[in-house]
Amino acid sequence: MAQIKPGFKVGLLGGGQLARMLALKAHQLGFEVHALSPSAQDPVAQVVSHHHLGDLSQRRHLEIFLAQVDVATFESEFLDASLLASVSSSTVQAAPIWPRPELMGRLQDRLPQKELMQEHNLPTLPFAAVQNMSQAEGFLNQHPKGVVLKQRRFGYDGYGTFNCRNKKELEARFAQWDDKVPALIAEPRCAFKRELAISLCRNRHGQIIVFPLVESKQVNSRCLWVKGPVRHGRLKTLTQKLTRFLKKTDYVGVMTFELFDTGRELLINEIAPRVHNSAHYSLDALNLDQFSAHLLAIGDHDLKEPRAHNKGFAMMNLLGKSNVSPEWPTLSDVHLHWYGKNENRPGRKMGHLNAVAATPELALKMVQTAERKFTL
Amino acid sequence: MAQIKPGFKVGLLGGGQLARMLALKAHQLGFEVHALSPSAQDPVAQVVSHHHLGDLSQRRHLEIFLAQVDVATFESEFLDASLLASVSSSTVQAAPIWPRPELMGRLQDRLPQKELMQEHNLPTLPFAAVQNMSQAEGFLNQHPKGVVLKQRRFGYDGYGTFNCRNKKELEARFAQWDDKVPALIAEPRCAFKRELAISLCRNRHGQIIVFPLVESKQVNSRCLWVKGPVRHGRLKTLTQKLTRFLKKTDYVGVMTFELFDTGRELLINEIAPRVHNSAHYSLDALNLDQFSAHLLAIGDHDLKEPRAHNKGFAMMNLLGKSNVSPEWPTLSDVHLHWYGKNENRPGRKMGHLNAVAATPELALKMVQTAERKFTL
Repeated sequence: MAQIKPGFKVGLLGGGQLARMLALKAHQLGFEVHALSPSAQDPVAQVVSHHHLGDLSQRRHLEIFLAQVDVATFESEFLDASLLASVSSSTVQAAPIWPRPELMGRLQDRLPQKELMQEHNLPTLPFAAVQNMSQAEGFLNQHPKGVVLKQRRFGYDGYGTFNCRNKKELEARFAQWDDKVPALIAEPRCAFKRELAISLCRNRHGQIIVFPLVESKQVNSRCLWVKGPVRHGRLKTLTQKLTRFLKKTDYVGVMTFELFDTGRELLINEIAPRVHNSAHYSLDALNLDQFSAHLLAIGDHDLKEPRAHNKGFAMMNLLGKSNVSPEWPTLSDVHLHWYGKNENRPGRKMGHLNAVAATPELALKMVQTAERKFTL
Repeated sequence: MAQIKPGFKVGLLGGGQLARMLALKAHQLGFEVHALSPSAQDPVAQVVSHHHLGDLSQRRHLEIFLAQVDVATFESEFLDASLLASVSSSTVQAAPIWPRPELMGRLQDRLPQKELMQEHNLPTLPFAAVQNMSQAEGFLNQHPKGVVLKQRRFGYDGYGTFNCRNKKELEARFAQWDDKVPALIAEPRCAFKRELAISLCRNRHGQIIVFPLVESKQVNSRCLWVKGPVRHGRLKTLTQKLTRFLKKTDYVGVMTFELFDTGRELLINEIAPRVHNSAHYSLDALNLDQFSAHLLAIGDHDLKEPRAHNKGFAMMNLLGKSNVSPEWPTLSDVHLHWYGKNENRPGRKMGHLNAVAATPELALKMVQTAERKFTL
């Protein structure tokens, strides 16, 4: 495995909080950090000297950027995967992009994502591609407790997800779309007990580490808090399957699986080929955080086995509640990670709080108490 | 006490590793970070978007820089204190500088520094200003076990410190200087058991926090490692005196006291009006690190009482050993903080390692073992 050397250049495609936290950890590890994003106000732009203003959908901007770094990665799976793949493979001196854009391309569309899960025998809900009312009704007949329609592309934080308990609700939904039905998949409604998440990381030599299983509380389909570690009878089996999946797909970097816990089963709801909100706790709760792990993996360095500092941890998102300028206190028991965004907006992720304690519940109480002291 | 608000601008005077670590923590807290330093290769320059190339001894550069930030601080006490004081007080819209340059000016010269300690009844070795052999001999007669001559200005990491056990060694030393004797102070040679250090931090409202007492191992007058916490019968009394000292001098920010532990007594060897190498452990060992504390203090925010995550911690400096390009592994049990310096040099501080464990000795072993894996 390679040692780290000075001047090794990591390129971050994107400028949000994930890129910012990748940059801050890359500094600490001794990498030279470059970032490509469209605005000098982006969260990443404030924390790197090599900020490249540019458009992630412009071939020329990508070519120039990738020629200046040794390895590149992205913070969002909603980039133009085929453009990235083409620039990375056809441009002289272009840095490799990890995870591979081709796989990102399959995962950014829910249909091939589900097919990939099926192909690799990963536990997930049944599904069908749906383009019209009659197909949806067919699926409902097979799953009479109701269906969830999901937009195949750009579904994010609950956007593009529609719960339909019966035929009437299905009809109302399709009536609203009229003749502009987006590409959809249907899944049966799932009576899960709680939502969980787990992240794994694999480096270019095939070394794989597994982060703790966590509970992820969603409100209005948006992550509010995470606590862990969570024990589950199916965790070992699931981890084996996920490990095999990363190996088979020759995946490199952090991959996050959002899960439904039905009590008896752990079903994969979604796969994200990147660092993820549900693993932000790792910045303060573990000896290895997800951002450092991702960077080490794509740079082909050794991965450490993550270990928790204490028996419980929690993370709470600081979500905007208004348009007023935010204010925040200094806090004695929790760690603040502010994203440097200029404008507050309802629902916007402005930062997050981490706590470590003797139990997950105690840690959660700490971040919840602290969050109330913020003007958001 | 003020809440933190977005866009609050902190100006860092200087570009080395202390400025870099201040910048990284300022990002996390949500401050906007500006730095003034002479080279785009400086460690701080890589981690901030607002890097101002300039000369810290040029009035015009300081004026322009201080007009653009809300509060400023420095990473070295060897700046032109009267220039800083004059720019800060006489320029329209210049940000205040904390700690006050006037106090920095007194501390950068060992004679007024010792006088200040005397004035405030702080425990320290006796001393005398010395300009020639006959004055030095007079001091030796009072302290027959030998004297230590110290250059009054720019003494750093042992540079400018001369041990003279007897008259012969004193004569040899003065002979070497010929007629170019630097301004000196003399102190008696001190048979200390070990060197310790302690940092305190005070904010603009007078709130004071005390960091743990640590042992600091010096080799060739350069800090090799730090471990702690250290217990000492005189700690409580000393802390009371130091607290009073910070209050009386209306000090704002982190102040570090290097100490001699004679067994019975804790004597102050040196005072540094800034964040300090001996408190780098705080980045991973405490719920509040020295850099965040310093930033919160100068921004007039609440200070948290520092608490250790475990019963022991240690820090080891990564000192250059050659001129070859360094390489470093990824490490499972210790935290790496690399400073992003382009060139390795023997003795140069390239980074440091932190570990936390059940005892200080265990933590020290961890960083020592890890350090051997580096090519430096």
